[in-house]
Amino acid sequence: MRAVIMHGPGDVRVENRPDPVIEQPTDAIIRLAATCVCGSDLWPYRGQDKADGPAPMGHEYAGIVEATGRDVRNVKPGDFVIGSFFASDNTCEICQAGYQSRCIHAQPVGAIGTQAELARIPLADGTLVPTPGMPGPDLVPSLLAASDVLGTGWFAAEAAAAGPGKTVAVVGDGAVGLLAVLAARQFGAEQVIAMSRHEPRQQLAREFGATAIVTERGDAGVARIKELTRGYGAHSVVEAVGTQASMMQAIRSTRPGGHVGYVGVSHDVTLAGDELFFSGVHLHGGPAPVRRYLPELIDLIWRGTINPGKVFDLTLPLAEAAQAYQAMDQRRSVKALLIP
Amino acid sequence: MRAVIMHGPGDVRVENRPDPVIEQPTDAIIRLAATCVCGSDLWPYRGQDKADGPAPMGHEYAGIVEATGRDVRNVKPGDFVIGSFFASDNTCEICQAGYQSRCIHAQPVGAIGTQAELARIPLADGTLVPTPGMPGPDLVPSLLAASDVLGTGWFAAEAAAAGPGKTVAVVGDGAVGLLAVLAARQFGAEQVIAMSRHEPRQQLAREFGATAIVTERGDAGVARIKELTRGYGAHSVVEAVGTQASMMQAIRSTRPGGHVGYVGVSHDVTLAGDELFFSGVHLHGGPAPVRRYLPELIDLIWRGTINPGKVFDLTLPLAEAAQAYQAMDQRRSVKALLIP
Repeated sequence: MRAVIMHGPGDVRVENRPDPVIEQPTDAIIRLAATCVCGSDLWPYRGQDKADGPAPMGHEYAGIVEATGRDVRNVKPGDFVIGSFFASDNTCEICQAGYQSRCIHAQPVGAIGTQAELARIPLADGTLVPTPGMPGPDLVPSLLAASDVLGTGWFAAEAAAAGPGKTVAVVGDGAVGLLAVLAARQFGAEQVIAMSRHEPRQQLAREFGATAIVTERGDAGVARIKELTRGYGAHSVVEAVGTQASMMQAIRSTRPGGHVGYVGVSHDVTLAGDELFFSGVHLHGGPAPVRRYLPELIDLIWRGTINPGKVFDLTLPLAEAAQAYQAMDQRRSVKALLIP
Repeated sequence: MRAVIMHGPGDVRVENRPDPVIEQPTDAIIRLAATCVCGSDLWPYRGQDKADGPAPMGHEYAGIVEATGRDVRNVKPGDFVIGSFFASDNTCEICQAGYQSRCIHAQPVGAIGTQAELARIPLADGTLVPTPGMPGPDLVPSLLAASDVLGTGWFAAEAAAAGPGKTVAVVGDGAVGLLAVLAARQFGAEQVIAMSRHEPRQQLAREFGATAIVTERGDAGVARIKELTRGYGAHSVVEAVGTQASMMQAIRSTRPGGHVGYVGVSHDVTLAGDELFFSGVHLHGGPAPVRRYLPELIDLIWRGTINPGKVFDLTLPLAEAAQAYQAMDQRRSVKALLIP
């Protein structure tokens, strides 16, 4: 099969690799209908994350089951399925509490790589959720979005306690931030403020339900959020970047007693205990337990209630994965979909 | 009047000071029935917090209203009242959401000092809560505890989402930690683990409802908590110390998706963003909004349901405040009550 391999910063290649096989009786093999490049793939691409030698890439996936191990009961060959970037048993206490990304048997799908024609998905029964039928091609981008960016934005908005009567601010205008805007509106938030300086992303934020755009950052950004909230700060703030600046932007934009939902993979962030203490905010985040939300998200997409697939503003064949990385790195694309 | 003044580390004196007077129409003057020394008073006493010159001490209080400003409506001379360590208007959006300690008009009562015969309490209508009648002397210690340590332990247990079916661990065996044990049991927690190495405090923790004592700390403490929770970690952990070690003890003892309620005033704590991210915990804390809980706490004390006054294991006249500080500093006393 063909698969994307990153050889080093800026060096993404599509190569022949052996087809994956069932290794454990709980595995499934899926044929990708679509896959995509994640903002987090840009960390190693930019050399900001160290990588040891060539690595398979990709952890977002939607596709058709080709084969299953002998213990798999919940999905069968021919099913169209979606899963999250952590395989999970969905039965342990952590999973049952809704934190499947921290399942005691969690396995990172990114280590396997889904920017490929085929992928082996561990713990298939716990991980994969079938759609009600075979989706038309128009639904595939949205279903693929559910695999990570939508589910992550959804978790972030929930962690930030977005809801009726609330003002929600979103720090970060990548796909996750934009879909957190969509989630906040679905949760009934009264006011949704997207922090973005990039016109096309502002536009998409508005389509997803943002009621205000803030272009200022740092102290000026905090001041602007306070102006928009009668001086109190936002009730709910989503952090979807993962830098020191974005975390502090989020915490300082939140009113005391408010909620910060943070999902940007943390890079060189350190939080001063005393500032956090006196901020009085709730802080919750981490790798989103996307599996928790998949049934609901699939349903909303299937019924046409939400269209998160709009975040894909570039579609390329898998063979052109290098161009997809480049476009996202240069912020010419919010998110690139790859067709194997 | 007589009042406690700290002149520098280890140097606590009881001195004559002018009687406080009504300065604002929203002020009340109270005559202290009892006051006490707080764990946080030990930070400057030990030189761990810098202080600029002599400072009045104390922020916990229960007593009788002597005089009120012309705008005060909710309390009147002769009322027995309790308030929190932050005066608050109890009407702003932050107060209405239950975060009175971060009221937009909050004033620290500690800057005024309640280790004294009399104290001026700002924003009396928002701050002071009268008891149903004049309490007998047996109830005064418990009512005084409500002013800070009980309310803070209560908030910590709530921030940690203590409740039925949950295992709650408490890091810190000071008065706040011990009362967080009491709160967790009141909230219906199934298992309450007190982390303590100090026999008399272990005993009090058991009286307050602890079901297990863990003496190990650091990695060994985490391992012990995991042993007691089928390997998952506690659902809820209260942090009631404020050091780097205690914060990490709390975060690492909590299962993914669990809750850390932290109320130890943060000293030199820095949290690594990546560890926090992958911990997947909820983090909430800060200066406890004790005012939120006062009506409920007074009711529970008045009906004899709880007896938080047991944390006072030393009672001295105000004149002997220096001995009270010494006893707490040397951990000979959990908490010292002062009778003006």
